[in-house]
Amino acid sequence: MKKVGVAILGLGVVGSGTYQILTEHREFYQKTQDVDIVVESVLELNRERALALGVPEDKIASNIAEIVSNPDVNIVVEVIGGISAAREFVLAALNAGKTVVTSNKELFCKYSHELERAAKRQNAGLYFEASCVGGVPIIRTLLDGVQGNKISSMMGIINGTTNYILTKMTNEGSSYEDCLKEAQRLGYAEADPTADVEGFDAAYKLSILSSLAFHTKVPFSKIYREGITNISKDDIADGKSLGYVLKLLAIGKQSEAGIEVRVHPTFVRQGHPLAAVNDSFNAVYLTGDAVGDVMLYGRGAGALPTGSAIVSDIIYAATHSENKYSTFKNTAGADKDTKFISDFKSAYYLRIMVEDRAGILAKIAAIFGRNNVSIVEMIQKPIGVDGRVPLVLITHETRELAVRNAVAKINALEGVGHVETVLRVIS
Amino acid sequence: MKKVGVAILGLGVVGSGTYQILTEHREFYQKTQDVDIVVESVLELNRERALALGVPEDKIASNIAEIVSNPDVNIVVEVIGGISAAREFVLAALNAGKTVVTSNKELFCKYSHELERAAKRQNAGLYFEASCVGGVPIIRTLLDGVQGNKISSMMGIINGTTNYILTKMTNEGSSYEDCLKEAQRLGYAEADPTADVEGFDAAYKLSILSSLAFHTKVPFSKIYREGITNISKDDIADGKSLGYVLKLLAIGKQSEAGIEVRVHPTFVRQGHPLAAVNDSFNAVYLTGDAVGDVMLYGRGAGALPTGSAIVSDIIYAATHSENKYSTFKNTAGADKDTKFISDFKSAYYLRIMVEDRAGILAKIAAIFGRNNVSIVEMIQKPIGVDGRVPLVLITHETRELAVRNAVAKINALEGVGHVETVLRVIS
Repeated sequence: MKKVGVAILGLGVVGSGTYQILTEHREFYQKTQDVDIVVESVLELNRERALALGVPEDKIASNIAEIVSNPDVNIVVEVIGGISAAREFVLAALNAGKTVVTSNKELFCKYSHELERAAKRQNAGLYFEASCVGGVPIIRTLLDGVQGNKISSMMGIINGTTNYILTKMTNEGSSYEDCLKEAQRLGYAEADPTADVEGFDAAYKLSILSSLAFHTKVPFSKIYREGITNISKDDIADGKSLGYVLKLLAIGKQSEAGIEVRVHPTFVRQGHPLAAVNDSFNAVYLTGDAVGDVMLYGRGAGALPTGSAIVSDIIYAATHSENKYSTFKNTAGADKDTKFISDFKSAYYLRIMVEDRAGILAKIAAIFGRNNVSIVEMIQKPIGVDGRVPLVLITHETRELAVRNAVAKINALEGVGHVETVLRVIS
Repeated sequence: MKKVGVAILGLGVVGSGTYQILTEHREFYQKTQDVDIVVESVLELNRERALALGVPEDKIASNIAEIVSNPDVNIVVEVIGGISAAREFVLAALNAGKTVVTSNKELFCKYSHELERAAKRQNAGLYFEASCVGGVPIIRTLLDGVQGNKISSMMGIINGTTNYILTKMTNEGSSYEDCLKEAQRLGYAEADPTADVEGFDAAYKLSILSSLAFHTKVPFSKIYREGITNISKDDIADGKSLGYVLKLLAIGKQSEAGIEVRVHPTFVRQGHPLAAVNDSFNAVYLTGDAVGDVMLYGRGAGALPTGSAIVSDIIYAATHSENKYSTFKNTAGADKDTKFISDFKSAYYLRIMVEDRAGILAKIAAIFGRNNVSIVEMIQKPIGVDGRVPLVLITHETRELAVRNAVAKINALEGVGHVETVLRVIS
């Protein structure tokens, strides 16, 4: 039976989960995968933590050199996170010809070109299933499951923290601030929640997933990004009454015209499979030209779900000869032939606070008309405490720039009040 | 660039879809997969159909011998269906060392042992993603995505015909017969619908999927099977009012005690991800010890979705050196060490028609009590035209045999009427 030695860099949440899965399932993998996977070494500066997990003293390395020079280590698992040490260690491992398995979305998003070059040079494997959507095998699906398709669209709920917060706001009618605090208390959000709530985390993942789906590098810098910090409970309630739930969607589309990639809060119509993805669950909804619509759903984070993805990559690497690299161009930025679209099309939800006097609605309607924005549905709500009236409306599909123009014109109307919320909508 | 020759046996729905995908995407696969996939030959007795699809005259073979002796053919796609010719042709291809890709669930379910032995002998590949759940990459997910997990449970809506019928019955309140007719008119059901509506199709697929998930052969004969032909619109309506929708579920579970496998109509609580899988869509909901819950959703049938699965297998076979075989024992029947459980646990829905007289309810309640069946919820409906009263109830989780005993005892109560419906329930 083939024996494969693994080193784990970092015994944080995912590293500990991976260690636990590998040690508890060793016999199971011998029996079902015909491979003996052994943890040969861990790199963890907190020795107490390693010992508490049951790592034998002689398997705790104190620096990366010990690991890359260890001939018994075939696969190096990087679960440190961040850039500096992670990048240095991964490159060291690849340069030593070790196969690398990483959960590091930021690293892979920003440095895939450098890592893939190093891997190819040494004919080492480079696997990153755990970088996106936890245990859900979305990368394997893109590479080996729907690879016969031209993918036209990908829509994902790929950040658990924001989905937890938005689900709680929707179910309980609470404010963003209160839900964030609760998420922090439960460990679903970090003390500094910026990376999650401002959409950076989702954008790193979208960069990786859309690069794979569209077979060309989609750099982070091309992704339009809007977070959820300005979402009000009124918007969530009004959307709900119109039949929509709010989700932070990561959207990638490819057509003849080019690629559009964006992360923003989006109203999803009830009944769409993505509308039922709640709490910290994640999902990716793909459309391919042959397969049609496919959705993958599961836990996007956590020690064992993400550990499951790491272990899946380890077993795959241990049981396949070919090292598969991404087929997108290995550059830091976009391929010069790839066109990106910023003036994308969408339907919109708008909340406009207007003065309660005659003729205002006509002026607003005229602005929409001049910008080719047409309305599907509108609610005029009772007059508010400040004497202004909220108008809530949903538009037909239109162009982003048309809506922005219309919003600027409405905000410039003297004495009308202004557009408080602009959110995109999918049916 | 590696060139791979494909032969397609049968240009029915799936064969035509496969031909179309391969010919239209040839350049796309050259560019994205670094492989040139060429249809070298098709076996189709209806030459007109082949010509109409655009197959060049000199690529139409007239017998299997031409194909297995053609050195340009590396991969043989079997999309004939049924057993006799399909089995003979697949064995001929494998014996000639050709890799086989098949969509034939019945063949693979019943003869996997024979086909795998032939494949191993010649070191030929044997792929069957298209045999289960159309374009949804469920087999790839089990083999290469969640392979690090011990799978404890799998619940699937894996037959599109029955899901279409049940969705229509639920949404429109129509009878089974009317919905079946509509499904036949639209081509979702065959003239003889037995294989679908009696659960044979779902049971073939469950046999394949649970064998992979549980790493042991789960033969068709071990699967408890109940179809949807006796479902009444009253049951659907009453379940709906209790918060459930009816689905034909294929369920596989594995625990220390053994394996249970069953296909039967099941009430699924609203809010469960499977409850939202409607029309001809399919889904499989898996639970693994590391990954937790994962669901895959998509089109379970059709020319292009199933063609997508076939092409996925072709590309996989063309770009990987290892021929992966199932790890379950290659026997026609179950491995003798594998235990199967028939007295499984479930919650139940029962509809009992009772005489409208004093003391009856007490008698029925006493029978449930003696059999350890306890009730979660009960509705007594208004008296019917025949003077009998329908009782509709949901039980706590209990044993199948306990419910069967209780039902037999109730049916034996003199003058009480009888149990009209017994359906299983999941929350």
